[in-house]
Amino acid sequence: MKKITILIHCKDQPGIIAAVTNFIASKKGNIVYIDQHVDQEQQVFFMRLEGEFKKASYNNSDFKSEFEKTLASNFKMNWELYTAAYRPKMALFVSKYDHCLYDILGRYKSGELTLDIPLIVSNHLELKPIADSFDIPFYHVPVSKATAVEAERKHLALLSEHQIDFIVLARYMQIIPEGIINKYLHKIINIHHSFLPAFVGAKPYHSAYKRGVKIIGATSHYVTAELDAGPIIEQDVTRVSHTHSINDLVSKGRDLEKIVLSTGIKLHLDRKVMVYNNKTVIFS
Amino acid sequence: MKKITILIHCKDQPGIIAAVTNFIASKKGNIVYIDQHVDQEQQVFFMRLEGEFKKASYNNSDFKSEFEKTLASNFKMNWELYTAAYRPKMALFVSKYDHCLYDILGRYKSGELTLDIPLIVSNHLELKPIADSFDIPFYHVPVSKATAVEAERKHLALLSEHQIDFIVLARYMQIIPEGIINKYLHKIINIHHSFLPAFVGAKPYHSAYKRGVKIIGATSHYVTAELDAGPIIEQDVTRVSHTHSINDLVSKGRDLEKIVLSTGIKLHLDRKVMVYNNKTVIFS
Amino acid sequence: MKKITILIHCKDQPGIIAAVTNFIASKKGNIVYIDQHVDQEQQVFFMRLEGEFKKASYNNSDFKSEFEKTLASNFKMNWELYTAAYRPKMALFVSKYDHCLYDILGRYKSGELTLDIPLIVSNHLELKPIADSFDIPFYHVPVSKATAVEAERKHLALLSEHQIDFIVLARYMQIIPEGIINKYLHKIINIHHSFLPAFVGAKPYHSAYKRGVKIIGATSHYVTAELDAGPIIEQDVTRVSHTHSINDLVSKGRDLEKIVLSTGIKLHLDRKVMVYNNKTVIFS
Amino acid sequence: MKKITILIHCKDQPGIIAAVTNFIASKKGNIVYIDQHVDQEQQVFFMRLEGEFKKASYNNSDFKSEFEKTLASNFKMNWELYTAAYRPKMALFVSKYDHCLYDILGRYKSGELTLDIPLIVSNHLELKPIADSFDIPFYHVPVSKATAVEAERKHLALLSEHQIDFIVLARYMQIIPEGIINKYLHKIINIHHSFLPAFVGAKPYHSAYKRGVKIIGATSHYVTAELDAGPIIEQDVTRVSHTHSINDLVSKGRDLEKIVLSTGIKLHLDRKVMVYNNKTVIFS
Repeated sequence: MKKITILIHCKDQPGIIAAVTNFIASKKGNIVYIDQHVDQEQQVFFMRLEGEFKKASYNNSDFKSEFEKTLASNFKMNWELYTAAYRPKMALFVSKYDHCLYDILGRYKSGELTLDIPLIVSNHLELKPIADSFDIPFYHVPVSKATAVEAERKHLALLSEHQIDFIVLARYMQIIPEGIINKYLHKIINIHHSFLPAFVGAKPYHSAYKRGVKIIGATSHYVTAELDAGPIIEQDVTRVSHTHSINDLVSKGRDLEKIVLSTGIKLHLDRKVMVYNNKTVIFS
Repeated sequence: MKKITILIHCKDQPGIIAAVTNFIASKKGNIVYIDQHVDQEQQVFFMRLEGEFKKASYNNSDFKSEFEKTLASNFKMNWELYTAAYRPKMALFVSKYDHCLYDILGRYKSGELTLDIPLIVSNHLELKPIADSFDIPFYHVPVSKATAVEAERKHLALLSEHQIDFIVLARYMQIIPEGIINKYLHKIINIHHSFLPAFVGAKPYHSAYKRGVKIIGATSHYVTAELDAGPIIEQDVTRVSHTHSINDLVSKGRDLEKIVLSTGIKLHLDRKVMVYNNKTVIFS
Repeated sequence: MKKITILIHCKDQPGIIAAVTNFIASKKGNIVYIDQHVDQEQQVFFMRLEGEFKKASYNNSDFKSEFEKTLASNFKMNWELYTAAYRPKMALFVSKYDHCLYDILGRYKSGELTLDIPLIVSNHLELKPIADSFDIPFYHVPVSKATAVEAERKHLALLSEHQIDFIVLARYMQIIPEGIINKYLHKIINIHHSFLPAFVGAKPYHSAYKRGVKIIGATSHYVTAELDAGPIIEQDVTRVSHTHSINDLVSKGRDLEKIVLSTGIKLHLDRKVMVYNNKTVIFS
Repeated sequence: MKKITILIHCKDQPGIIAAVTNFIASKKGNIVYIDQHVDQEQQVFFMRLEGEFKKASYNNSDFKSEFEKTLASNFKMNWELYTAAYRPKMALFVSKYDHCLYDILGRYKSGELTLDIPLIVSNHLELKPIADSFDIPFYHVPVSKATAVEAERKHLALLSEHQIDFIVLARYMQIIPEGIINKYLHKIINIHHSFLPAFVGAKPYHSAYKRGVKIIGATSHYVTAELDAGPIIEQDVTRVSHTHSINDLVSKGRDLEKIVLSTGIKLHLDRKVMVYNNKTVIFS
């Protein structure tokens, strides 16, 4: 069987679901998953659909051109179609913290993530031995005020050369320049170590400690030009108390960061995230 | 606008979604919600759909008979259709514990539950003053081995006389006889004060204490002939520790019971629960 | 047996615990609970201790004066002693939302809260029938720019007349003036319908919706002069998704607000909260 | 400064806390942490205490013999004293699942766990490459009915030779024989992939799926002779729904297993667990 995933968003109008499901049926496909969402405020329609076709009866480029002609152009759809064969290339950016790196590489080696990791990029050398022990090429690109332009050029070259589909900042402690953000819009996933929008910016565990919160969190989100303000993919939290020092918060937070970042990666990978109006629709 | 909700389950077959959505479109309806689930093991298809129609163009009995003729009979569907006007009648069964009763009546008075409560039934008299203060008729039906048959007869008469649609056991401490269960199958919601299937039966907090668990739970489920083994609607949990006595567990559990029972009631009320194979499909 | 609870805080110094426990032992008391915390940053020591004494051998004023003389003055302690007989008087302030009011009054009637509620105060008349049905005096004190001074005077008079120990703002939609805050410092508990410090101020559910968060929260805290910035007593959260409208957030939030506020009330009531440096120590 | 941790349990009696804290004070020590618990049902007293001493004034063997003579023998205490220098040796037992192994080794390399891992033991060869890449000796000890006695002999020899302090079963799929359990009582930590006591034994995710639970869990516990019935150290849970297949439960469960097992290891390592009456006291 040939399995495909279609993502659609467009202005909400009557009859979209019927038109799409009818189209699949007319092509002798079986719908194995359908979910839809309407943003009532913005009047935008979102759909995610998985279909199965007998291999003999499915031709990808025919399907796509006919879908565009009969459906998409009528409803003015933004749409994407993925075949199960798709296996994206992910770049990992790290600095000195190793917990997210170990977590992602462990999942990768376990076969939990169906992607390739052509390279790890870092502004420091400390984590090179980990990259080596997992047999992944490591590129050291130092970043400072003086070298910022040169670093961006090198980053873009590496990403392009390795045909990177999306980037994961696994506690990478540098601001991403707009040149990279714009080229990989909604394709850069960051983990922020707070329950956004609380504690934007540096040292959120220190701020959480000072404020005396009873719960701390972590947030994975797409990177946009405004710091820590991009579309949120996933959040999780854990209880803390007055007995926890800042170091305890850092330590408890590490597990949150790992889970929340890897969940974000998996949702992105499974094409379950749609971005609209700086928010995300997360399909089940 | 006329708003309707349709629930369907049948053997999984290609083309069901297209057929249903097409039917709605052909009647000039707009689908505002659609969700579907396929139990891959049992090959059963489930669907929940909400549609909107211009009042002038929608006739309920025409719609239903045509849906049956053109769709349901072909696919051998089990299906139900609800109009928004539906406001079910709920009977409350209680014994001596008052926390779930207060919680449900508070929500009812707040307008959180769109239903009617024609009566409260109890095997004890202790909670009559609460029923009185909320102006709800209270019926005292004592239950003992000797009076069991007579009690069942009275219960059935009260339920029938008040045209009860579904029953909520708000910590009612009696086994429901099969005569009532069969007449109201998957229409009796119980709250069990444990994380089922752990600690089936009486005194679950005592058992949880003895086993030294670190988390306790509560479960709302439909009542079936086998004790505490009916389809689970909702569960929730809370952390406990060695510092908690049995009384502490009872006290912490009260909040769980209230939330889990009222969530179960609301899901049932919104027609978001489908029962199949002693499990539930819970639509979002 | 005579049961007492002692709360202590002072500069951290060696020997405090030994001195206190020794004092209790010398008075033939048995320590049934002891917990202590040291804020390492501020070098402050906190202790909560519960002791039991044979009734014949315990004299409250003797104990207190000797504790002050032999212990407290040496260590420059701030300390309080409560006897189990203590049953505080709580004032409830409400506006138009009734869910927290129903929840608190249900718990109160169930015997879950060992306190008295001499009065309910509101700037509106809508909730008077609820106060009536629970037999609690209701005072209507309208608040507007023009009547602010008069309202504060009336509030202070009512609180004083009814010998109120602490105040609970159960979704009271007015800013508390500093005159009342200063008189009842760390004795006014508010429920804020967000996960503070995210979404300070009005309409937090709207802001949460706009930001697209995946988790919403509620916070109970002591009221201080700075809005929503007082010491946090308790927080809790629940998951939300893109499918939830603002109304859904409001609805899901109601249960959070009820639980988080009542937990805050119970912690305050059990003398398990100590405030220091705008944070709380919460004893188990 | 010399830092020590003392764990005590004995019959509950008046004056224990005073006697212990007084002893520490008399030795010029400063108590930096004290927590205590009384099991009211069994009348057993538990205490955990951390103290600091000037290095010059502390002699370990003197302290221990005097503590025994003046205190422990009077109160008939069971007690243990640990100095901060203690760095235990942990053996890892695995089979074919690698997620817990990757998680523990990642934490170990990150410096999160202050212990040594002298060896990994497995009844299969599949995970040897992971042991190799982390530079940890790997021992293959096949286990079958025929080789059970020989395997137990080899295990005991390996554990003894490497002076192992405690054993972690990181999804080791064999029953531990009583000979090993008795020698390492309350020193073998297992991860069970369910919310015990629900779903004891094999294939808990299958049972959870069949029962239609809405929450799944994981439990770390000490191994005792009765299967999955030993003292529970830690539990955690996550929500699931009808949309999750058995494979989805397995996948979601992996993260739970990792967190719950590593939390159990850390609590054991920090000497925060006391076992009594087949339950645990977990100090904060």
